[in-house]
Amino acid sequence: MTNPPATLGDLLCPRSVAVVGASRRPDSIGGAVFKNLLANEFQGPVYPVNPKAEFVHSVRAFPSLAAIPGPVDLAILTVPRDSVLAAVKDCAAKGVRGLVVITAGFREVGESGRRLEDQVLEVVRGAGMRMIGPNCLGILNTDPAVSLDATFAPTWPLAGRVAFSSQSGALGLAILDLARGLGLGISTFASIGNKADVSGNDLIEYWETDPNTDVILLYLESFGNPRRFTQIARRVARTKPILAVKSGRTGSGRRAAQSHTGALAGADLAVDALFRQAGVLRTDTIDDLFDAALLLAHQPLPAGNRVAILTNAGGPGIMAADACEGVGLVLPALDPATDAELRTFLAPEASTRNPVDMIASARAPHFERALGLLLKDPNVDAALVIFVPPVGTEAPDVARAILAGALGSTKPVLTCFMGSHGIPEGLRSLRQGHVPSYGFPEAAARALGRAVSYARWRARPESAVPVFVDLDPGRARRALASAAAGAEPVWLAPLAVSEVLAAYGLRGVPERVVHGAEDAAAAADAMGYPVALKLVSTTITHKSDVGGVILRLTDADEVRQAWAELEGRLAALGRSREFEGALVQRMVVSAYEGAVGMTLDPQFGPLLMAGLGGTLLEVHKDVAFRLHPLTRDDAAEMVDSLRSRRLFDGYRAASPADRAAFVEVILRVSQLVGDLPEIIELDLNPVAVLEPGEGAVVVDARIRVAAVPPHP
Amino acid sequence: MTNPPATLGDLLCPRSVAVVGASRRPDSIGGAVFKNLLANEFQGPVYPVNPKAEFVHSVRAFPSLAAIPGPVDLAILTVPRDSVLAAVKDCAAKGVRGLVVITAGFREVGESGRRLEDQVLEVVRGAGMRMIGPNCLGILNTDPAVSLDATFAPTWPLAGRVAFSSQSGALGLAILDLARGLGLGISTFASIGNKADVSGNDLIEYWETDPNTDVILLYLESFGNPRRFTQIARRVARTKPILAVKSGRTGSGRRAAQSHTGALAGADLAVDALFRQAGVLRTDTIDDLFDAALLLAHQPLPAGNRVAILTNAGGPGIMAADACEGVGLVLPALDPATDAELRTFLAPEASTRNPVDMIASARAPHFERALGLLLKDPNVDAALVIFVPPVGTEAPDVARAILAGALGSTKPVLTCFMGSHGIPEGLRSLRQGHVPSYGFPEAAARALGRAVSYARWRARPESAVPVFVDLDPGRARRALASAAAGAEPVWLAPLAVSEVLAAYGLRGVPERVVHGAEDAAAAADAMGYPVALKLVSTTITHKSDVGGVILRLTDADEVRQAWAELEGRLAALGRSREFEGALVQRMVVSAYEGAVGMTLDPQFGPLLMAGLGGTLLEVHKDVAFRLHPLTRDDAAEMVDSLRSRRLFDGYRAASPADRAAFVEVILRVSQLVGDLPEIIELDLNPVAVLEPGEGAVVVDARIRVAAVPPHP
Repeated sequence: MTNPPATLGDLLCPRSVAVVGASRRPDSIGGAVFKNLLANEFQGPVYPVNPKAEFVHSVRAFPSLAAIPGPVDLAILTVPRDSVLAAVKDCAAKGVRGLVVITAGFREVGESGRRLEDQVLEVVRGAGMRMIGPNCLGILNTDPAVSLDATFAPTWPLAGRVAFSSQSGALGLAILDLARGLGLGISTFASIGNKADVSGNDLIEYWETDPNTDVILLYLESFGNPRRFTQIARRVARTKPILAVKSGRTGSGRRAAQSHTGALAGADLAVDALFRQAGVLRTDTIDDLFDAALLLAHQPLPAGNRVAILTNAGGPGIMAADACEGVGLVLPALDPATDAELRTFLAPEASTRNPVDMIASARAPHFERALGLLLKDPNVDAALVIFVPPVGTEAPDVARAILAGALGSTKPVLTCFMGSHGIPEGLRSLRQGHVPSYGFPEAAARALGRAVSYARWRARPESAVPVFVDLDPGRARRALASAAAGAEPVWLAPLAVSEVLAAYGLRGVPERVVHGAEDAAAAADAMGYPVALKLVSTTITHKSDVGGVILRLTDADEVRQAWAELEGRLAALGRSREFEGALVQRMVVSAYEGAVGMTLDPQFGPLLMAGLGGTLLEVHKDVAFRLHPLTRDDAAEMVDSLRSRRLFDGYRAASPADRAAFVEVILRVSQLVGDLPEIIELDLNPVAVLEPGEGAVVVDARIRVAAVPPHP
Repeated sequence: MTNPPATLGDLLCPRSVAVVGASRRPDSIGGAVFKNLLANEFQGPVYPVNPKAEFVHSVRAFPSLAAIPGPVDLAILTVPRDSVLAAVKDCAAKGVRGLVVITAGFREVGESGRRLEDQVLEVVRGAGMRMIGPNCLGILNTDPAVSLDATFAPTWPLAGRVAFSSQSGALGLAILDLARGLGLGISTFASIGNKADVSGNDLIEYWETDPNTDVILLYLESFGNPRRFTQIARRVARTKPILAVKSGRTGSGRRAAQSHTGALAGADLAVDALFRQAGVLRTDTIDDLFDAALLLAHQPLPAGNRVAILTNAGGPGIMAADACEGVGLVLPALDPATDAELRTFLAPEASTRNPVDMIASARAPHFERALGLLLKDPNVDAALVIFVPPVGTEAPDVARAILAGALGSTKPVLTCFMGSHGIPEGLRSLRQGHVPSYGFPEAAARALGRAVSYARWRARPESAVPVFVDLDPGRARRALASAAAGAEPVWLAPLAVSEVLAAYGLRGVPERVVHGAEDAAAAADAMGYPVALKLVSTTITHKSDVGGVILRLTDADEVRQAWAELEGRLAALGRSREFEGALVQRMVVSAYEGAVGMTLDPQFGPLLMAGLGGTLLEVHKDVAFRLHPLTRDDAAEMVDSLRSRRLFDGYRAASPADRAAFVEVILRVSQLVGDLPEIIELDLNPVAVLEPGEGAVVVDARIRVAAVPPHP
């Protein structure tokens, strides 16, 4: 018997639930899940399925799914591993729409588990069901029309507008607990376990149109399909913020890299690039994730990064100012009108400069009036209110005053109620009334900094991946053909490298491969001076390491001498046989010496690098990474994120450099590596960026190719 | 009437206390302090002083201090500001030893307050009393023989071995509350307010010998005497860890800097340098401060940075591994014997590689046995245990098992009990039993990282400030004399700069100031080629900004041409009148191009810089800062902390560089700026560090001098 395909809505908003494996033992998972479903008043019938019990938690039990009289939308499976496949078949037969398989012992324990998981999945797909798990904690939906707690977690969260997907069940427990403690309301929670069927990507797509969800939180340990994640997240983040914690080192899976780009590409850079390009806010810790979510779920997005601080105690005000500036926020001078009006009612000792310190004598009405003024100030994009309860002033009064002061404002307000025992009643209602509170100013500043970043990302028009048409991919492919035919990856010969770059509109400098001193001198005479002489060898990767690069040769005699020197150096190293010739190259004067590169991430595909080049590339590490394909904004952002970006504007006596040309080189490389998956590693270094309007030329380049394109 | 000088012990361990201004109103500060003293059972009589009340909180009140029949060791003043001076005089007359002035309205509100504070201080000093405050929250001592709660804070902390000094009273409230929530026991707490008499430095010295204190925590907003702080902290931190949060930006007080060093020295670098040199652990937030204190107060110091992670859930184990590596800890491979023994009792699906994942089926005895094995492993310096409570395993059982497993170990153990409601009973006792727990693995990793840093600092032998004797300070002073006589700070002329450097054993390159093309050519011929020609001008600070540096001149003709070019460039800029001459300088080939500098911090004195030099110094920002005077270790650490440090070992084809010579340049500069306080700014850039054994030469240098030494 097959059904029309089920949706995630069927899973998360069922009208009836069966717990297969519901047990009478209180310490069993099946018993705990069943009890949670009852205790949190699921809005529909819940059926315990247990052949050995007459009733479970006072509810009549059924010996099998088939014995249940009505339809079953959702089945929760907590039976032992070896009974799961049969239970899934029973579900299919019963016409169940959604499954949550809590039972563990599948893919995560090795080959036999993987086979069993595949068998289960085959039945699920064949019957048009959707499945969460196996090896998970369960799912939750706080919508009062559903009220589904199909987990064995002890915590039922507050209802709210934040959805959460956790790849770790263990962490899911901690997360639900923390959310409750913070007063962060949850719409839907899913522990996705092994992701055999339903993935995090599926959930993001569900939440995109879920009217109960405004903010999406993810705890990730791995990406099933990074490209799909990027596409979905990029789209969804335009309307609903997505925040993520990603753990798990990818370093061990990485092949030893021979290029600069590969050496610089740390294990986590691809993940950082992916989140950045998809508009996902990454935090290092769950605490930070929740702090940012408290703000994004309850307050408007800030229009800019200018924050006003209002405090009744100097020290915490200074801490807050430090913390704000530390995350890139600014404390603007207040409008003179704001200052003048603050002076009319604050104590003479109060400071009306930002941070506004009302001193300890301030009472609730002062908070209300001052906050209202700060939010009206045209220089202010957000307000952070700090309250330290002195003797005689009640936190709930101040909380109500802050709510009143913030009323009607379209600017975000954050608070920091310090020195109080836990979260007092007034703050709890403050939270539900949508003004978040933080224990210390740093957490508030970090959260606001993230909201500003997200608002900026969202305000920017969507950038496109440019397509250059003045290219000759056929010519590039021909140049690669012979090298890419071998079994082992190889470095392309210099002439082939030049061909590939030329085919993609990447200018090189005039150059010629020569095989003798006279040949070199003649080539140099023909192209003009100064020139450089560079070793040609397929086996020597870093030419400068063997003294294989001789610069600034100004006449034919110097070129001849340099040839002799090159021969001598290799002879001294006993590597004369690797001396295949030399490249005579016209030297150019670069206004900015850049580098552009690509290394292949085994999971995420081509990872592009751009930054400050030269021989000290790996020492300065002034580079940025993004995943292929690059939009115009991606490439421009890479350049703007460099420490050396100021060199493009002309630094001291040096000329400015053609920033647009460097960005174009990066974009052309992006298109190149996308078109030609045989390329597995690429270094353009240096890229001589000339003065504005003069373009950029690739001075040296290395390309490594493999026979079989290993792009994922 | 005068007394023998009181000590901090008299203040913090009094045998009798009077509250001057004890009020019957429950919302008054005096009432709150008096109530706290009674409620927390101070071990001695507490006298309310209130002329208008017969009794306060059922205790007979006295109309004045004089009316109290017995002696009064400590008086807490909560009277209105205008009554404080009279009350202090009464205290002096009564023979009170210590004062805590909670009343505000002194130095912090401006000039009239400052004058009043000075008058109060005069009385205090004249009577040999010690005073904490004014404008503070009060003091606490949890020693059961004292049991002093002379604060108006609602929280009485747990007794313990951590001392805390807070410059902010407001934050003090939050701190006491947080400490209580974390189960962090406090020995003494002092809110030091305006620090009119007793300073943070005094408290650190008191805690140095206080048998009840093992760890010292500081919340600082300013330094009264940074040099004394450094001396005291450096000594005390050898035996008791000192942790600090410092807020407050010093940027506004900073004079506009004209040197590279000044431009690079951000507002907070001097504070960072000070803490580093004093062995003080700086944290950004109060949360981090307490996390580190939980570990340092309760566990032995780690002997190294190798951590074993033991977990019953995979995800949090990965998070912990990431977090540990992120703070510089390493996860070593376990000894094969450990691995073999773990396999004998863990589930077959468990992972016995580090992190050791015992999977969810692990029970308390598994934790005990596995932890014991990990702590015995010779590859392991510390253990982090993560516990996620699955259904059926009790946290208190596991907590007891961890205590048992850690028994007798000299290696630190940290835990992370996740997903539990608050801190369960078992963990509470775990904390008192001295194994700290953290809510998430990142916090545990950060705390352990700090403990490793501190242990390393403490294990290192104390380093001395070297004194070079091959110097001629008189010669340097003569060279400075004329310049330092003027009213305005000036840049020294190049010849005077060379004199000063030569007098301090800092080698320069052969050079001569010339005033014409032929003169230049002759000078170059005499010193040998290649040479550089550099503009001499007292008004043009950055010579390369006007094209005033021409390099690599290889014969006399090129020198003549260069002279003409220099003339032309300045003429083109209309600055010919600033062309005072040129410096002909022999060019050297540096293996490392360094920079050494000094800028004067208005509060902390000379701040020394060393790092990668050249024209891109401010772009690369690869520099380190330390405060004067430098020990040998300080200078060596500066070099070791650079990104470019690998260049000293020879990078790719480049030669290695004379690291010892560069360190010596740094140390000589430190002695120079200490001996000659007229020097207010100094840049040596570039410093050509030659190949090992060849030394280092200063290629270019600028020194700015002022008439009046403004060193603090």
